[in-house]
Amino acid sequence: MNTAPATARTLADPDTPFAVVDVHKTLRNIERLATRADRLGVTLRPHVKTAKSLDVAALMHGGARCPVTVSTLAEAEAFADGGYTDITYAVGIDPHKLPRVIALLRRGVRLRVLLDSPEQARSVADAAHRAGIAIPALIEIDCDGHRGGLTTDAPALIETGRLLHRAGCLDGVLTHAGESYAAHTPEEQRLAAKNERDTAVAAAGKLRAAGLPVAVVSVGSTPTAHAAEDLTGVTELRAGNYVFFDLVMAGLGVCRIDDLALSVVVTVIGHRPEHGWIVTDGGWMAMSRDRGTAGQPQDQGYGLVTDLNGTLLGDLVMTAASQEHGTLTTRDGTTPPDLPIGTRLRILPNHACATAAQHHGYHIIDSARSGAGPAPAIEAFWPRVTGW
Amino acid sequence: MNTAPATARTLADPDTPFAVVDVHKTLRNIERLATRADRLGVTLRPHVKTAKSLDVAALMHGGARCPVTVSTLAEAEAFADGGYTDITYAVGIDPHKLPRVIALLRRGVRLRVLLDSPEQARSVADAAHRAGIAIPALIEIDCDGHRGGLTTDAPALIETGRLLHRAGCLDGVLTHAGESYAAHTPEEQRLAAKNERDTAVAAAGKLRAAGLPVAVVSVGSTPTAHAAEDLTGVTELRAGNYVFFDLVMAGLGVCRIDDLALSVVVTVIGHRPEHGWIVTDGGWMAMSRDRGTAGQPQDQGYGLVTDLNGTLLGDLVMTAASQEHGTLTTRDGTTPPDLPIGTRLRILPNHACATAAQHHGYHIIDSARSGAGPAPAIEAFWPRVTGW
Repeated sequence: MNTAPATARTLADPDTPFAVVDVHKTLRNIERLATRADRLGVTLRPHVKTAKSLDVAALMHGGARCPVTVSTLAEAEAFADGGYTDITYAVGIDPHKLPRVIALLRRGVRLRVLLDSPEQARSVADAAHRAGIAIPALIEIDCDGHRGGLTTDAPALIETGRLLHRAGCLDGVLTHAGESYAAHTPEEQRLAAKNERDTAVAAAGKLRAAGLPVAVVSVGSTPTAHAAEDLTGVTELRAGNYVFFDLVMAGLGVCRIDDLALSVVVTVIGHRPEHGWIVTDGGWMAMSRDRGTAGQPQDQGYGLVTDLNGTLLGDLVMTAASQEHGTLTTRDGTTPPDLPIGTRLRILPNHACATAAQHHGYHIIDSARSGAGPAPAIEAFWPRVTGW
Repeated sequence: MNTAPATARTLADPDTPFAVVDVHKTLRNIERLATRADRLGVTLRPHVKTAKSLDVAALMHGGARCPVTVSTLAEAEAFADGGYTDITYAVGIDPHKLPRVIALLRRGVRLRVLLDSPEQARSVADAAHRAGIAIPALIEIDCDGHRGGLTTDAPALIETGRLLHRAGCLDGVLTHAGESYAAHTPEEQRLAAKNERDTAVAAAGKLRAAGLPVAVVSVGSTPTAHAAEDLTGVTELRAGNYVFFDLVMAGLGVCRIDDLALSVVVTVIGHRPEHGWIVTDGGWMAMSRDRGTAGQPQDQGYGLVTDLNGTLLGDLVMTAASQEHGTLTTRDGTTPPDLPIGTRLRILPNHACATAAQHHGYHIIDSARSGAGPAPAIEAFWPRVTGW
């Protein structure tokens, strides 16, 4: 398997398909949001579910072990092994997983869990009591009807807070404006950010009014994190996708196409001129089945096509995918450019989280150092955390 | 990570989400197609791209190292390591990958490559000449405009055959009725199978008429393999998905829901009664983003829901997915069943190839041996081949 390319020197070398991260663009994306968070006066707690990479995380805060958010306990364990001690596990807790949570707490990791029911609060309180350790918990607040969480007026909010507080486990509230992925204008994104902030602060206020302590007021999504203008009352901001960005985020206007730091290198393996198709060896196994731009004004198929240096090839789009085949066509059905068998291309993905998940890790390039040559140099291979 | 569950005893034990394979159903599916192939008088060459598992492959032909089809060189290398010596790599060859092909041939593996252009044939011939070894090659034939391949009347067919033959590399022809996934009636599937066979045999006839030897005439897709009535002139049949089947295949009528051998175990982590939602810890990371039933008469969302024993829970469907969250609703919007936090369920996937690819391997159960207890026993953990 081409997962440990000790001898690979440029993007022309490893067998395709493989994932590439441009560290220059990644750093630029990281600095952009770090600057925003500083200006807004909140702690940035990056969600590492997109890159799932200790090496990418090390680019944040100049290598310091910053607070992070994780989507699996496997990530929490890997980041704890990497020296991270302030971790929020932002998926509603399944009580069956509490032994692994407690094991991390006993290692000195401040691991916060998330929940949105008295039932879960009782499980957490019971487990904490049995283990003789506090399990810091955040109450998930629903700000936009996207997924989980308690609304600010739910009677269960105070009940959940009391159950946690009695067990010494109440740490605060957390919300996520998941519907901001459907906010297609800067104004809609600002409103989504305001609503996310207002809802979290209102929930904290209700709990405090009931005599319950709320230390953490956590908000965030990549679109709202880049749109928020005032985070008064919020203590921390979360975002994940922003390190790489993707075509969905570009479609929302949160970034430019030029900011996309993740791509997949593929090779031309066939032509069907009678259909206007170029066939590559990068299918959905390499890109994922994510079609996140299908609902956007500009549908980008399975991705946009660039040369190895990242320059867009006119209007070429990856319009179809089998397991190990991709089909490229021009957007307007005109004849595609002449790309012989063996030509290497890069595909910019719809959804970085989903595409990255199809790979063991990333070949790292630095577009600020690459010359005008045909293939950027590979600087390193950075592995991903996988599984649950 | 819960990838090596030495101590897991039933489906109630490992942390969720995780993939499960029912070996009883898998064996039944394997025997069904093996019987068909015997009756049709062709060799069955299973495509191992679905399970990517040496243990699943060992169920075929009673543990004998049968001929197999692979979708990546990583699979070819893993199966060669496992003692398989007759392997067809059924993705158009990228000349850059020929060194790995030659390395396998030198190990004594009869690895066939696939191609559909004189350009690739020249690359293969040159590489074979330089290495002093024949590289057996099949010419890909397009039978239904689905993806790659040469049509039987393409002038390049004979030219490609001659280039290969001159280099001692011509082994035969291969076609795949990819459009059969859109054949929604038994009659359409029979016609797709007849067309697939007729086209492959016609291509072989054209090459033979030009004085070129054609040993292998290979056809197959899961729908056509189960519909073919006459394979005269064909030497081998390929299919991959049939070992597990999935909701797409059930929607086509190729199998019953009860034949689905792959599922994903998830846990209830929340409720939104005001929306009629049950929230689980199995999102697209566990199921994939595949929505293969979206274009079928019955859209199954991200999957159908069963209890741990595999009994369908009425009308419950996984209708939405985030990275680590699944949303279950009833098909008609009525109140879902009362499933408390911590309840474990199994989700039957749209597309077994895509869902399996999200996991390191399979927890194995045997529904023929499981009692009426709440959770089937886990018999083994079977790893998957990953990467390229």
